[in-house]
Amino acid sequence: MKLFTTSASPNGRRVNIAVAEKGIEIEKQEIDLGGAENLSDEFKARNPFGRVPVLELDDGTYLSESVAITRYLDSLHPNPPLFGSNDLEQSYIEMWNRRVELNLLMPVAQAFRNLSGMFKDREKISKEWGLISAEVAQSAVPLFDDQLAKTEFIAGDNFSVADISLLCTLDFARATKQDLPFDLPNISRWYSLVSARPSAKA
Amino acid sequence: MKLFTTSASPNGRRVNIAVAEKGIEIEKQEIDLGGAENLSDEFKARNPFGRVPVLELDDGTYLSESVAITRYLDSLHPNPPLFGSNDLEQSYIEMWNRRVELNLLMPVAQAFRNLSGMFKDREKISKEWGLISAEVAQSAVPLFDDQLAKTEFIAGDNFSVADISLLCTLDFARATKQDLPFDLPNISRWYSLVSARPSAKA
Repeated sequence: MKLFTTSASPNGRRVNIAVAEKGIEIEKQEIDLGGAENLSDEFKARNPFGRVPVLELDDGTYLSESVAITRYLDSLHPNPPLFGSNDLEQSYIEMWNRRVELNLLMPVAQAFRNLSGMFKDREKISKEWGLISAEVAQSAVPLFDDQLAKTEFIAGDNFSVADISLLCTLDFARATKQDLPFDLPNISRWYSLVSARPSAKA
Repeated sequence: MKLFTTSASPNGRRVNIAVAEKGIEIEKQEIDLGGAENLSDEFKARNPFGRVPVLELDDGTYLSESVAITRYLDSLHPNPPLFGSNDLEQSYIEMWNRRVELNLLMPVAQAFRNLSGMFKDREKISKEWGLISAEVAQSAVPLFDDQLAKTEFIAGDNFSVADISLLCTLDFARATKQDLPFDLPNISRWYSLVSARPSAKA
């Protein structure tokens, strides 16, 4: 297997952390998003949607979308389980992972893209939407803090893909100087816990 | 079990189609999105994020997020399998479902919300972003047409949750008068096929 990725992107890091949790060795090739390498013909032959990361399987086929790749790696290397150990746990983890993605990762990414204009050579941007997205992200954080008052990890008693998504989102927001309430008490407690895992260095 | 939903919304319909495919009887209570019933204290006790649909389980706990609900129903009623029958198929279906969601369902929903202003009493909108989202959606459709030139259903040989997502997205775009290239040849062939399933009436 070979992973084509941009490790500095939130989605690249999501898969890198999963790989580290599993203790898997995978050959990696970094893709230069800034230089639009993901939009080259060569890359689009791997993923016509031009997004990183992409996993090349041993039979030469390609798998993209971070969570699809992570779920595949989880099926090959079930320990530690990142998607839950029974049907109901799997569904709760999927719920929480999607809550992170829809209510926080998306608005944080849209605030970044529309306010920084980093990709304005290849996509139309709206400063107005960037500002709205930043507010949406800010108002979502307390809902995750409320959950973390009740559970050790975001989807319950065990570390899961939903924690990986939340960690990568918050770190990306911090790195791009977004003004989120990072210091809410339960978020802070959880952040120290997950950041101390060796995989968080990925 | 009891489903709190808005059947006219794309996400409500996604779960309704899955329920119909499985032949399950579930008690349903319609939630009035237009009247902001989803933002009432009573509803937020079921889902603090204020989104439909929500499935109440027999033990009184709540599960939200359409795909998490669908995956749970799939685990209870495995036939027909909507998430694949082996690890690799599961990952491909997840990849295609997410491609539909990220590249088409999201921009179609954002175009609708920002251009119609249907929810402007409760969220800030940007006409500029609505117009950008409409263009993004238009440009994504041919990539799905390309895939449907190669496979009968969007993620391969079998009907899956990814087909449900694509059908609900295209029908919602049509209902809200969005100008997508609905008549591309492979999309048209696929649309006739999936629309003829009894579940499409859901």
